[in-house]
Amino acid sequence: MAGNVGDPPLFFERHVFCCVNARPPGHPRGSCREKKGDQLYDYMRGRADELGLERVRINAAGCLDRCEVGPVMVIYPEGVWYHVDTTEDVDEILRVHVMEGGRVARLMLRPETTGGEEG
Amino acid sequence: MAGNVGDPPLFFERHVFCCVNARPPGHPRGSCREKKGDQLYDYMRGRADELGLERVRINAAGCLDRCEVGPVMVIYPEGVWYHVDTTEDVDEILRVHVMEGGRVARLMLRPETTGGEEG
Repeated sequence: MAGNVGDPPLFFERHVFCCVNARPPGHPRGSCREKKGDQLYDYMRGRADELGLERVRINAAGCLDRCEVGPVMVIYPEGVWYHVDTTEDVDEILRVHVMEGGRVARLMLRPETTGGEEG
Repeated sequence: MAGNVGDPPLFFERHVFCCVNARPPGHPRGSCREKKGDQLYDYMRGRADELGLERVRINAAGCLDRCEVGPVMVIYPEGVWYHVDTTEDVDEILRVHVMEGGRVARLMLRPETTGGEEG
């Protein structure tokens, strides 16, 4: 699943990708930006800076292809996806998942909860 | 390193993030877009579509914070980073890494080959 023997160590221990993609108004799939994904990304990045998290990167991403359940983010290397609505959701993910290595079960996306084929 | 017990299976078996970030001309760190990272992303996405790769996502990303050695991309869940200059480099990464699970050693970045602190 994860790396091959001899792969370099991870550059970021946790790499969070927040979708900030925009689509035209009225697009059937919607978009994360239409649902304020870009603002949640800005907030998360600012909070991570304030918390001084080491070897963590909060990254903007283009379309992650799960628009229907956005705003979405995915955290690697574990590959865990979240639907996020509020700054409180972001705070909880930063504290429980990014800092403590736990999971925020109420916000996690299952693989079948999407996406590309539906819209 | 990887997931926790009970995590859902991966949504994408290989998730490639290509930096397409632009900075103003003359910025000391440079940017991946200035070095055609966006064109390499477009090419990679098109080729992946043509190849019909299943459960693979070629994604645009904002700044990945390794600008000095760009254009860069990172492939998760394994967390392997590449510096890419040409469409031939992209083809090799698609074939050897994404499709066959190998590594393109000549293009791989080591963790110490960067980055944020230098520029």
